Amino acid sequence: MLQETLVRVLYANQDLPKQSLVKFTWGNVSERDEETGYIVIKPSGVEYDELTTDHMVVLDLDGNIIQGNYRPSSDTKTHLEVYKAFPQVKGICHVHSTYATAYAQAGMPILAFGTTHADYFYGPISCLRVLKKEEIEDDYERHTGLIIVDHFKKHDIVATPGVLLHGHGVFTFGKSAKDSVYHAVVLEEVARMNYLTTQINPQAKPIPQYLLDKHYLRKHGKNAYYGQGKSHE
Amino acid sequence: MLQETLVRVLYANQDLPKQSLVKFTWGNVSERDEETGYIVIKPSGVEYDELTTDHMVVLDLDGNIIQGNYRPSSDTKTHLEVYKAFPQVKGICHVHSTYATAYAQAGMPILAFGTTHADYFYGPISCLRVLKKEEIEDDYERHTGLIIVDHFKKHDIVATPGVLLHGHGVFTFGKSAKDSVYHAVVLEEVARMNYLTTQINPQAKPIPQYLLDKHYLRKHGKNAYYGQGKSHE
Amino acid sequence: MLQETLVRVLYANQDLPKQSLVKFTWGNVSERDEETGYIVIKPSGVEYDELTTDHMVVLDLDGNIIQGNYRPSSDTKTHLEVYKAFPQVKGICHVHSTYATAYAQAGMPILAFGTTHADYFYGPISCLRVLKKEEIEDDYERHTGLIIVDHFKKHDIVATPGVLLHGHGVFTFGKSAKDSVYHAVVLEEVARMNYLTTQINPQAKPIPQYLLDKHYLRKHGKNAYYGQGKSHE
Amino acid sequence: MLQETLVRVLYANQDLPKQSLVKFTWGNVSERDEETGYIVIKPSGVEYDELTTDHMVVLDLDGNIIQGNYRPSSDTKTHLEVYKAFPQVKGICHVHSTYATAYAQAGMPILAFGTTHADYFYGPISCLRVLKKEEIEDDYERHTGLIIVDHFKKHDIVATPGVLLHGHGVFTFGKSAKDSVYHAVVLEEVARMNYLTTQINPQAKPIPQYLLDKHYLRKHGKNAYYGQGKSHE
Repeated sequence: MLQETLVRVLYANQDLPKQSLVKFTWGNVSERDEETGYIVIKPSGVEYDELTTDHMVVLDLDGNIIQGNYRPSSDTKTHLEVYKAFPQVKGICHVHSTYATAYAQAGMPILAFGTTHADYFYGPISCLRVLKKEEIEDDYERHTGLIIVDHFKKHDIVATPGVLLHGHGVFTFGKSAKDSVYHAVVLEEVARMNYLTTQINPQAKPIPQYLLDKHYLRKHGKNAYYGQGKSHE
Repeated sequence: MLQETLVRVLYANQDLPKQSLVKFTWGNVSERDEETGYIVIKPSGVEYDELTTDHMVVLDLDGNIIQGNYRPSSDTKTHLEVYKAFPQVKGICHVHSTYATAYAQAGMPILAFGTTHADYFYGPISCLRVLKKEEIEDDYERHTGLIIVDHFKKHDIVATPGVLLHGHGVFTFGKSAKDSVYHAVVLEEVARMNYLTTQINPQAKPIPQYLLDKHYLRKHGKNAYYGQGKSHE
Repeated sequence: MLQETLVRVLYANQDLPKQSLVKFTWGNVSERDEETGYIVIKPSGVEYDELTTDHMVVLDLDGNIIQGNYRPSSDTKTHLEVYKAFPQVKGICHVHSTYATAYAQAGMPILAFGTTHADYFYGPISCLRVLKKEEIEDDYERHTGLIIVDHFKKHDIVATPGVLLHGHGVFTFGKSAKDSVYHAVVLEEVARMNYLTTQINPQAKPIPQYLLDKHYLRKHGKNAYYGQGKSHE
Repeated sequence: MLQETLVRVLYANQDLPKQSLVKFTWGNVSERDEETGYIVIKPSGVEYDELTTDHMVVLDLDGNIIQGNYRPSSDTKTHLEVYKAFPQVKGICHVHSTYATAYAQAGMPILAFGTTHADYFYGPISCLRVLKKEEIEDDYERHTGLIIVDHFKKHDIVATPGVLLHGHGVFTFGKSAKDSVYHAVVLEEVARMNYLTTQINPQAKPIPQYLLDKHYLRKHGKNAYYGQGKSHE
């Protein structure tokens, strides 16, 4: 039901400050409503502790507002491009969390240095290019979505559900709004660990592929044996 | 009304420890009362959790105490010089927040490495020179104000509302006491992100001017489209 | 009594997020029940704030489930190998705490740079090798246990109750579940201090052996004089 | 009154975890009772949240226990040597706070890079040498006190109320137990800022002497004008 999706998106957005992923209004989470196919997203510039379901904005995939009295997040077009291209994406989270953003500002990928990474991201988390002047002048937020889509045409968005935007921040994906926030928390912690790893040992190397396989696959796919037979959600 | 300004300045000062910008009594916030033109500022050396509106000090721009039984902040003359020179400044915040102060101690500017910076500061945050011995012997706090004024004669204090003082700390500005504290929080987080950015990649470069323009201008000015049609305050 | 051990293991696991050692479900603690010799361990993938004694899993040393309706931690075989090899180990804790994991990802030992380290770890905390492909294909978790056992055949597991696993995380040991968590907290703090130490001074040297002896032995063994005549537990 | 001193020492010790200066039982604070000249100190190895005035130990300057049923802190002899040598010291705090200890482990002094430092410490905070084997074998804690005393025969313990011990931790001093803890908080924050300063700019230089003078003397001595005419305590 759409009303339930509004509640879920509200909770997922309220989780951002609790997980120390944002300051002020610097982040937004959305979810695709299964029944209607509409996207529910946070309004622009409203503080998390003031948010109610009445603030949530419901849009169709073309960006037409179906329900809600507020302007949607200024990043809405980026979310919509990803939802349009990848039906398997049900939730999207965008934040400027500190360590992930530092990697984005450094223009560097987050490599798989350990099993914490491998448990959730099946390979390196890429840092995409800065948009060109023409793209920004044409439509900044839509072109941001397009380069994300372009990247995940060549990479599995379910197996590596996150990407950095050079000079900007991070987008994570999931099978729900909550799941995308979960991935943002993991990505931030992995970025922090990797930062420390390379400071301690500039020659540190990613884990071998067979260890990456082992950890990812013991948590995901049909032979997974972690947990109680359901996902972390 | 002056009484309301006292309450606003009280709240803005109490926000400093909540935002992790200060320890003990290491910071002060002031605001210009619209009606009277007087400045309301924190008293010197009083703990934030003991502060009431009765502690607040009201001064005219020449530093004459109009109301209040306490000594004003030892940095009062610095605030006054800025208020005198820039009528558009309505609030001033001074703190020794950790990362901003580290940049101030390093004598280095905070460059615009990302859009988090660009959303609030339209260009690099400068680090001003150490005062000369004669300036300190003459009047330390007034000369501190004068070099800030000197700097912002050549830079827009509204578009880049913050500055570092070499070997000292940071001053931020705004359209109210609260707004100046908001900018101090952003500046501290941006300093922290930039620190990590340059540790990860010493060759990291500021974002291109067109991206800086885009992010600053989507939040500020007459074509802004972030938020619900009012500022973040 | 076995029921008391379940409560102790529950509390020790709940302590992991309180001590900032874990996010989500990333850690597990077990204890050997004195009376029965059984091992009590956390279930796999259950959130710490949902845990009750009913979730705990009781196993014999061969991994047969004696009591409990949940799957045990996916790291159970690692715990069991250590319990089988070292009767003096009564509690085991496994976490991916940030600084310890960074050292593990860097493939570097944690050297004894100070007396904080020496108070609890009588020498460097080693980082073991990455498992081979054949070991992972055969039985990942059991082989992880075996290389830990192999290491502590040559080192005293009571005097240096912790070890890093390259590209993975950390295991700590103790005379109870609680004691193993205590050691994980110390190890994390020592890792953090050592990180800062070597960043400040890349030429920093471990403390001399006689100072290591002094601090370790004033807290441990028959001539200890720290505390009130009982251990820190 | 001695009973009041016990309460003050209790509160000062309980403040250590609140100020994030310690984990577990890693720190101790003492105060000299004005009336009797006795020293009141924390017992060894008791958790801060279990402490009551009944746990406090009262000793004379020769270390004879005058009152109390618990063993005093294992660092008691160090405190006593300082109290004996410097009558102006009324409170002593010893902690292994993270950044201060990192400097101690690195064997490096904390230089005066900014006015935050200058407001409380009138010059660099020194790092003393590691004790010799013979000193440790003779009487570790007393010799630790003796090298501190030796240092402050050549430096003003009131103007620079803190010192690092190579490979160990930090001691701070004050005109009460509370004041010594205050200095430990400042020293830790200054250590953290200095760490970041030198990471940002390895060529960073201490502030000039005239700025150090200005900041220290506007807070201390007969021409001080910070605060409301009494100290920060």
